[in-house]
Formats: sequence, structure tokens, C-alpha cells
Amino acid sequence: MSKSIAGPEIERLIQLLARVPGLGPRSARRAALHLIKKKEQLFAPLSAAMAEALDRVRVCSTCGNVDTSDPCTICTDPRREDGTIIVVEDVADLWALERAAAMNARYHVLGGTLSPLDGVGPDDLNIKGLVERVAAGGVSELILAVNATVEGQTTAHYITDQVSDLGIKVTRLAHGVPVGGELDYLDEGTLSAALKSRTTF
Amino acid sequence: MSKSIAGPEIERLIQLLARVPGLGPRSARRAALHLIKKKEQLFAPLSAAMAEALDRVRVCSTCGNVDTSDPCTICTDPRREDGTIIVVEDVADLWALERAAAMNARYHVLGGTLSPLDGVGPDDLNIKGLVERVAAGGVSELILAVNATVEGQTTAHYITDQVSDLGIKVTRLAHGVPVGGELDYLDEGTLSAALKSRTTF
Repeated sequence: MSKSIAGPEIERLIQLLARVPGLGPRSARRAALHLIKKKEQLFAPLSAAMAEALDRVRVCSTCGNVDTSDPCTICTDPRREDGTIIVVEDVADLWALERAAAMNARYHVLGGTLSPLDGVGPDDLNIKGLVERVAAGGVSELILAVNATVEGQTTAHYITDQVSDLGIKVTRLAHGVPVGGELDYLDEGTLSAALKSRTTF
Repeated sequence: MSKSIAGPEIERLIQLLARVPGLGPRSARRAALHLIKKKEQLFAPLSAAMAEALDRVRVCSTCGNVDTSDPCTICTDPRREDGTIIVVEDVADLWALERAAAMNARYHVLGGTLSPLDGVGPDDLNIKGLVERVAAGGVSELILAVNATVEGQTTAHYITDQVSDLGIKVTRLAHGVPVGGELDYLDEGTLSAALKSRTTF
């Protein structure tokens, strides 16, 4: 805005909202106006929820998940199997797998992938903690749920190497056709992987 | 989320963020995670800016703009012409016109348009306040910058009627080809209006 048309507090709110992923300068203005209009219904509760989450959010020292308790809700959940750890790159991946609700296991968040070009080495990721958890015993399987990218696969290989002496099973997610996916739109790599891992109908 | 995977404070933050225009349930999760990761750089300042804006935001009792002072920055700006009032439907329109920085006038925010089907009558809009401002004197022109919709035009006609005895000039925005617009993509109504209002080259 060239001229100041609203108080500095509102302009600062718009500037900060514009840095939230999913919002840009234009939608940040729309969002700010909407908040101001829905002052009691949305703005006040959101502001309170922000302050509370900001105050209480922690990174779990066991698995790297974010939560308001440390150890996190998943690490302390007595109904989960201790024997399986699903290794993910990011908390977002953990949440995605939890939404699928396919496994009742523990997690380990690496906090990224090995990427020599970006200067990300093993010490920058939460790999040491993972090896320690496995070495402490009680774990029989490590599911490497990293992304199917070069960096993800490199990281998977590195981790496999690190735990090779500990006598546990290391698995990775299956490659194949996404459920609901159309063959025509899939890349050759996926199709060839799906053919190779075909199952009996 | 079927199972609780993060503390209730984080889940509540995600639910509220999902109600911000521009964000949905999916992007609200991404936004919340991003905020948590950028705790010091973004989450803390945004939370503080929200609390401050929430505390200080006011609706201007003169023009209906939102600001942290009442009367607002525009109403109290001594460099603006008192003689011209630009009438807009919404604060968003006021901000849009201010970004264009084409006029140095005062504003009046109606807070919507007349819409009998939705039960919005003249008393639901800030029309009485506008007529009073004009009647108080010192105003020579009313620019009706309402949207070019049926409701906007109905509202414009109603306002023109209300101020017809007060001896002021009432104008509306020009219809025409948007700057940078391609004729091929414009509707017939706009093209015909642009032809009718053609100017000497």
C-alpha cells in the first residue's frame, strides 16, 4: 500500500499473514479483513488459539514430532506397537500417514533428507537418535517412509547402512499406481515399478 | 484427523486456520506446521500482531472504514479533499481504490448492497450516515464506486434518489476495457459500453 490507509497494527498483521504458506499479499489482505469482520466468531478465538499453541508447542525429544507434550501423544500412547518405527522426513508426512490410519506404530521424524548439495549431512538430521532408539532394543522393523526422490532414497540407504549390524528388518513403502490413479497420467518409472511388483488378482 | 496425533491446542489452531479465507483444511495443516517450524521468525510475531490488531481495531463511526483509530486515518487526514466522497460497498473496495492512489478524497463504506432477496434493505446498510454527511454540507460530489452488478446498480440508484434534493453532483465509475485487457475475452456489455463512451485519440 502506497499510502497508509489503516493503522500500523493492521498493516503489520497483513504483512505477517502474507508470509503464511497458502496466503500471498492479496489473500492476506482478504484474510485480515475477514478476521476483522468476524471479530468475535473467528478473530478472537484464532488469536487465543495462536497464543496458546505458541506457548505450549514442543518438539518431542524421542521422535521429533511436534506436540504440546514431550514425549508426544504418539510416543506415550500405550496402544501402539513398540516394535515398529515408521521413519519420515517431516512432521507433515507423519500427519499424512496418521490420517491414513493404516498402522498403529511409533514414528521417527528425520527433519529432512541428506542433500550434500544443500550442505545437509547426517549430523543435521535426527538419524543419531533413530540409531539409539533401535540400539536400545525392542524394535523389530524400521519402515522407511521417505519420499520417492533421489534425496529420500539416499537417506534411506544411509539409514539402512547405519542399522545393518543391529539385526532388524528394514522395509520401504511400495511403489505402484496410486489408488484412483489413471495409467495414462503416470510416469514410466511408476508404471514399470507397478508392473514389476504386480500381485495375484 | 481420526486419531489425536497432536495436542488439542494444535488441532484447535488448525481448525480455526482452516476457516480463514484462502486456507482450507489441508493448507491450514501446512500453515500450522510452518508456523511451528518458524516459531521465532513468524509464529511469535504473528501471534503478537493478531492480539494487538484484535485489541485495537475499530470501525470508523464516520465512514465505516476499519482502522485502529476512530475517526479513521483517512477521515482525519488533513490533506484530503472534503468535497468528494467515494461510496464503496466494502472496506476491501476502499483498500483497492487506495492502492490505485488515483483520488485524494474521503470515503463512505456501505457495508454491502441492497438485496431484497437476501433481506438486505436500506436500514441494513450505512446509507443514513451517508445522507447525513452530505446534508451536513461541504460535499460537492458523490462518486458511486459500487460493483457493476445488479445489486450494486440498484444501490447506486437508491442513493442517487436519497440525495437528489441536496444539490450535489453524483457520478459513477466509467465502464470500459480494463487496462491491459484483451477485447477477445471481454463480454458484449463491456465492449458496447466502451464503444459508447469512446474518447478522442
